[in-house]
Amino acid sequence: MSKICRKVSPVSIKKFQLGLATAALALLAGCATPTVRGTGDLGVIIERATGSVQVVDSSRFVSIASVKGLGDLSHASLVYSRDGRYAYVFGRDGGLSKVDLLLGKIERRVMQAGNSIGGAISQDGTLVAAQNYAPGGVKVFSADTLEQVADVPSTYGSAGQRSKVVGLADAPGNRFVWSLFDAGEIWVGDFTDAAKPKIQKFENIGTQPYDGLITPNGRYYMAGLFGEDGMALVDLWHPEQGARRILNGYGKGEEKLPVYKMPHLRGWAVAGKYAYVPAIGRHEVLVLDMETWQEAGRIKVAGQPVFVIARPDGRQVWVNFAFPDNGNVDVIDVEKRSVVKQLAPGKAVLHMEFTPRGESVWVSARDDNRVVVYDTASFAQRAVLAAESPSGIFFTSRAARIGF
Amino acid sequence: MSKICRKVSPVSIKKFQLGLATAALALLAGCATPTVRGTGDLGVIIERATGSVQVVDSSRFVSIASVKGLGDLSHASLVYSRDGRYAYVFGRDGGLSKVDLLLGKIERRVMQAGNSIGGAISQDGTLVAAQNYAPGGVKVFSADTLEQVADVPSTYGSAGQRSKVVGLADAPGNRFVWSLFDAGEIWVGDFTDAAKPKIQKFENIGTQPYDGLITPNGRYYMAGLFGEDGMALVDLWHPEQGARRILNGYGKGEEKLPVYKMPHLRGWAVAGKYAYVPAIGRHEVLVLDMETWQEAGRIKVAGQPVFVIARPDGRQVWVNFAFPDNGNVDVIDVEKRSVVKQLAPGKAVLHMEFTPRGESVWVSARDDNRVVVYDTASFAQRAVLAAESPSGIFFTSRAARIGF
Repeated sequence: MSKICRKVSPVSIKKFQLGLATAALALLAGCATPTVRGTGDLGVIIERATGSVQVVDSSRFVSIASVKGLGDLSHASLVYSRDGRYAYVFGRDGGLSKVDLLLGKIERRVMQAGNSIGGAISQDGTLVAAQNYAPGGVKVFSADTLEQVADVPSTYGSAGQRSKVVGLADAPGNRFVWSLFDAGEIWVGDFTDAAKPKIQKFENIGTQPYDGLITPNGRYYMAGLFGEDGMALVDLWHPEQGARRILNGYGKGEEKLPVYKMPHLRGWAVAGKYAYVPAIGRHEVLVLDMETWQEAGRIKVAGQPVFVIARPDGRQVWVNFAFPDNGNVDVIDVEKRSVVKQLAPGKAVLHMEFTPRGESVWVSARDDNRVVVYDTASFAQRAVLAAESPSGIFFTSRAARIGF
Repeated sequence: MSKICRKVSPVSIKKFQLGLATAALALLAGCATPTVRGTGDLGVIIERATGSVQVVDSSRFVSIASVKGLGDLSHASLVYSRDGRYAYVFGRDGGLSKVDLLLGKIERRVMQAGNSIGGAISQDGTLVAAQNYAPGGVKVFSADTLEQVADVPSTYGSAGQRSKVVGLADAPGNRFVWSLFDAGEIWVGDFTDAAKPKIQKFENIGTQPYDGLITPNGRYYMAGLFGEDGMALVDLWHPEQGARRILNGYGKGEEKLPVYKMPHLRGWAVAGKYAYVPAIGRHEVLVLDMETWQEAGRIKVAGQPVFVIARPDGRQVWVNFAFPDNGNVDVIDVEKRSVVKQLAPGKAVLHMEFTPRGESVWVSARDDNRVVVYDTASFAQRAVLAAESPSGIFFTSRAARIGF
């Protein structure tokens, strides 16, 4: 599958300065060409079952490399270096791998914790942070070398115990924000002086924050609460105001429904002044007015929503679902506030990623081992790519965005 | 200045398949390395006096290449290929140059008109459009080959005359939108079938539209009117509603002031529901409520504003000015609605460009032949780069944005 010929990469060639003949022959084969290319239209597909990723080209709808040896990629996510060349892949097993998209190989890899669920990259691109369940806390690494530069244990209370960390996000000013599941706290770390971070703690924000997100402008951080009904909100422009509760009754309804899969907050769609929020347990997407933080409407969908993602122009919101409706994708028209198209990309749809300007969307269907690309204007299928149990799909344009 | 060694680029090497020794020797010199790199942190600085551009690295604050032979670059602008490797530079003389940032050279160049003032690239990245004064119209080219695929003359009225074209912008759905200065019209072209574009015309939108812009979500197109007081607005989600007039009285005041330089509409800042708009002739930035399209406030600044640009997180708006205040830059805090910092980057500040996530801003000072980089949190000067009469600065992250 890989079209990349590592033997002729300049780095390798420098290692074998006497290998003239080999190098020249490899060049004659034309293998070096693929590494000299722009990175703006690249992306990565996580193959969770095999611990591998595919590097894909979203202009030509093809895979250009496969990289193996990334460990346990269940629930894996990644962030990009600011040049778009490297993906930092956070594995469930605590592995942090720096993958070179151009050479199609692992550049560096460290085991940084026992149990990890994701990370973030600082505004200036110099720091990569990982959020860990065990041992609980946030570790911060040089994006260049993966050397550890800071360790912030999630110690809380009087007994010195450490909390699981969830909902880690980047914020402007080289800050990271995260939530302490066991402590019910939100912490904001300013890593301008990376080795001596300044930590601000918001306590008693609610019971069991299970995930968090930051708005696209980096101003508001929200944590979903597993232990009670509602969310915690911090205005990062005004930390002195503390955390406040919003969406009381979020998830409540006439009757409690069984929840097959907790929705991903990171997938929240923000379009204009509205956020489109997966209802917990219900077959609905909530419309949230971000000026008043009040619910502004509900949209019926095909199942319990997992990811609710806005097309980059904000005119459509795409939704996938928990079992047993996880073969469907619904497309909401935001003006009509109703589903205008239903698609069936395959079995077990896990994730969706729009191209940067939104003309296409890539959808992973894990149990059909494929990724389907749709034209978002016509809903025509543009391409199908084979992949081993694909889950997350991530394009390099995330490098240029806050909160990705 | 250039650190790029063209001899060892794979493309060149393929041309000289027998030049084994040469190729190998060049490789030993390590010259090929710079071309294998990500493009997400690259940018281009226009050097208007010398018809050249510099390719810059915004992670390391250095210039990595200089490319000459681009013709008349007064009032030049550019757009990026979706992979971030190529800049399409629109020269005033009608030259359209495709510059390869990685190899530091002109890949292709065509003279497409006699007098041109800019262009745009389609949502899917396959089409580059140029807007021309003479002969008036829009020409559309293959982004790959620069072969012309469509020509839309700006013919209007009954006598067959052609209008100057201004305010060209891309919109979702592989559309371009532009204004006809002499005709007082706005045209929307759907280039989904590029060779047979569907053109929708909005007539009688006002006298002498002189520039246009599209909102970051690609929904609203606005044209500034030179011949009367106000702007024309088209809602591209609802073209059936026609064009309407907004900001009547925009530019009016107690007394008319001489206008030293027409402000650039393309530089409008949009942050949250407000747009920050250069007042024409007055030492003010207008605050426009984008829900009501009414003026919501005015902010006093140091001179007649030219570019009014929001930091990517929307918390600051930076402003440069027309002569005689063109050595200043004002920084507005959007909550306070007042200037919180004044900077003096050098003589004749022409343009400002934020890094994608906003930690830095690059400012060109034409008559001091330098580009100054500021930290937007501390306002500290981070770097100074030498450049010949620098004007526009453009980072590759524009490739991922609507309306850039």
